[in-house]
Amino acid sequence: MPKVEPRTLSGFMELLPEQQSKLERMMETLRRSYAVYGFTPLDTPVIESAQVLLAKGGGETEKQIYRIPREGGDLALRFDLTVPLAKYVAAHSHELCFPFRRYQIGKVYRGERAQRGRFREFYQADIDIVGDGKLDILNEAEIPAIIYNTFTGLGLKRFKIKVNNRKLLNGFYAMNGMEAKAGEIMRTVDKLDKIGPEKLRQLLIDEVKMLPCKAENVLDFMAIRGTTAEVLARLEDYRGMDAGFDRGLDELIAVTKYLGDFGVPQENFTVDLTIARGLDYYTGTVYETEMTDYPEIGSVCSGGRYDNLAEYYTDRQLPGVGISIGLTRLFYVLNEQGLLSDEPVTAPCDALVIPMTEELGFAVSAATALRAAGVRTQLYTEKKKFKAKIGYADKLKIPFAVLIGEDEISEGVLSVKDMTTGEQRKLSPAQAAAVIKAAVDARNSVSVILENG
Amino acid sequence: MPKVEPRTLSGFMELLPEQQSKLERMMETLRRSYAVYGFTPLDTPVIESAQVLLAKGGGETEKQIYRIPREGGDLALRFDLTVPLAKYVAAHSHELCFPFRRYQIGKVYRGERAQRGRFREFYQADIDIVGDGKLDILNEAEIPAIIYNTFTGLGLKRFKIKVNNRKLLNGFYAMNGMEAKAGEIMRTVDKLDKIGPEKLRQLLIDEVKMLPCKAENVLDFMAIRGTTAEVLARLEDYRGMDAGFDRGLDELIAVTKYLGDFGVPQENFTVDLTIARGLDYYTGTVYETEMTDYPEIGSVCSGGRYDNLAEYYTDRQLPGVGISIGLTRLFYVLNEQGLLSDEPVTAPCDALVIPMTEELGFAVSAATALRAAGVRTQLYTEKKKFKAKIGYADKLKIPFAVLIGEDEISEGVLSVKDMTTGEQRKLSPAQAAAVIKAAVDARNSVSVILENG
Repeated sequence: MPKVEPRTLSGFMELLPEQQSKLERMMETLRRSYAVYGFTPLDTPVIESAQVLLAKGGGETEKQIYRIPREGGDLALRFDLTVPLAKYVAAHSHELCFPFRRYQIGKVYRGERAQRGRFREFYQADIDIVGDGKLDILNEAEIPAIIYNTFTGLGLKRFKIKVNNRKLLNGFYAMNGMEAKAGEIMRTVDKLDKIGPEKLRQLLIDEVKMLPCKAENVLDFMAIRGTTAEVLARLEDYRGMDAGFDRGLDELIAVTKYLGDFGVPQENFTVDLTIARGLDYYTGTVYETEMTDYPEIGSVCSGGRYDNLAEYYTDRQLPGVGISIGLTRLFYVLNEQGLLSDEPVTAPCDALVIPMTEELGFAVSAATALRAAGVRTQLYTEKKKFKAKIGYADKLKIPFAVLIGEDEISEGVLSVKDMTTGEQRKLSPAQAAAVIKAAVDARNSVSVILENG
Repeated sequence: MPKVEPRTLSGFMELLPEQQSKLERMMETLRRSYAVYGFTPLDTPVIESAQVLLAKGGGETEKQIYRIPREGGDLALRFDLTVPLAKYVAAHSHELCFPFRRYQIGKVYRGERAQRGRFREFYQADIDIVGDGKLDILNEAEIPAIIYNTFTGLGLKRFKIKVNNRKLLNGFYAMNGMEAKAGEIMRTVDKLDKIGPEKLRQLLIDEVKMLPCKAENVLDFMAIRGTTAEVLARLEDYRGMDAGFDRGLDELIAVTKYLGDFGVPQENFTVDLTIARGLDYYTGTVYETEMTDYPEIGSVCSGGRYDNLAEYYTDRQLPGVGISIGLTRLFYVLNEQGLLSDEPVTAPCDALVIPMTEELGFAVSAATALRAAGVRTQLYTEKKKFKAKIGYADKLKIPFAVLIGEDEISEGVLSVKDMTTGEQRKLSPAQAAAVIKAAVDARNSVSVILENG
């Protein structure tokens, strides 16, 4: 029979079991972290009506969308989790309680040009808090606390959450008479880290067509760095010149104050006036998160406050604040950089039960007892030489082999072999379960991410 | 601004938070159950090349597939998890260890005519054990043990796992000279439960064009019922007439013997000679699972043994055994029948912290302490009347409200209100965490499914 090549499409991540196990562990950490902050899990369809999905329309996104042609209106695959959230909240606004706090970890689709580290199918892990008409500022302070605890839970220590405020930025541009060019300026300032202040000044003058004194104002503003207290003190110098700026500054003061109450350490947090997160969607606090040793990766968790989640679907004013982790890309980068710990068990099971007699009754009962005690157990009954059976446990990195021969059956015990140390002990089924569980739990308590140094 | 109607496509399940929470709990139970039997989690793309996905070709499936037109070859959405598994195993056969045991819980797509209880996007929850060249019979006995523990874990008690063997069936048809019509006969026999033996006899004679004596043979065979021991004894009467039948009977004897060792109770298990599971794919033991009080739902977990998983992709012989739960449909039916327990907490959080002063520092610290202790906690800081705040906890069915006023701040305690009993107590943050966790854990230890009677 002619064979079809069993290929996976390029730009689609498909992992071998060991790597998949690490990704699952990351997802589980995110689910637990999001849940502990009181977010409810949400699941929306991968396919939506193209008309609904593209209600906002235009832009790069529309070109990248996967469409399924249908009479009576195309279908399309979701390209993020925000638009489906907007649809969901608008559709169910009378059945939901506000503030509505949901998390969603799901696959999204963008038909981008495939390149290394870029994916066409990838997981996003989002949280959003959506209010009805209003939403208290405390929610904007809680978001960095969630980011902090989520990344700490993954095992990351060297990261920085950068916070800014769009009202403050817009106010600054307004007080300098630059409202019209604010978007263009923000896009240009975004390059500051890469090109430095000198080249940025030239760009602002030559390309954005700003007067040199105004470009200087922008550079001075963006040069404000230091501790949170220092930055806030410098920003006070601008107070009183623009109502929007003053409101933004008050919000930034509130957010940074509460962050201390939430227990986010100073070293994981900074006010960074250069971040802006796009143009029209965000209206208050904005966030980016940088891995200290890998700034070239860019932000691994971003988001912000918005005033109107679902304006394309409803007249109801639904302000909110949310963040998104590009999980597939983060996993890819961590894996590439060798930052994923090998300590947690990646094998399909904790114990491989190997019967060495024809009669399997005792082995089956032993496996059943181990499973009932919560030990992930596989029975290996294929007709192979002993060496091949132990080799199977070895290759899969199964922590324990449980050998059952005639002696074990007559004594009612299990020979438990620690595959790491080679040590072998005869134990009762209950003892065996306790020993295996303790060793596996210890290994699994190690974080997913293992930072160097 | 003109609005787009925020509609969800028909045939796509989108749940409100309370229901979603119940579905998540079911999925979590399946993940845990599959993992404890030593299956590794697998995740494959939702989109595959249409050429790969339809390598087998033909049939109803092809008409239902969602296609994404592309130059150089259409893409398509997976319609089950078996074809992607076959592709995966064929593509990675040199990197995997066999037997390869994987579970996958994922969405699949079929553009069926939408009708009540039928879904176009639905979750399947599959396990498969794939061998390289051979696979021991014990694996076929382990599958019903997994079904038993999975459904028991969900809280279901009144269900029956039906087992049959395709070699036995084919052997029976061969010994009666009915090989050529075996497929047609099996399809017809499948109606026995609905139409009864009299009508079945007529159908076999009139439509399958069988001689009355042969139809009688089939009816006699299908009428074999009773305990496992009784059925096996009756089947012995046919031994020696067809080698395939004898092999099938030996397999059935082995499978039923081991099932006892695995601890599957007699009342949850039966040999049922009428089940066949399709025509050409399965080659050994086959399984169906019926909810005793809801036979009209049909099988909620089915599968079987196959000889050649990936014949369209590779010459390598990859026999296996697997089962699939149609999770979305099962959830829909359980929900419709009112069988989902309301006891486990469905709220987004276990505790709603309600500050009653302007100063939020203590409330934020209290929430942080509760979260650190594993209590899913939400801070409610919206500017609303107290009644609205408590109403929010009530509507969302949040188990505990934690009230923090000036007294609590000065005493360093939390007023913990049990929302079910109305009882309110002043507790230290550590005590509060312990009380809330104990109550919530007790509720969450109740199974997802709550059978009547």
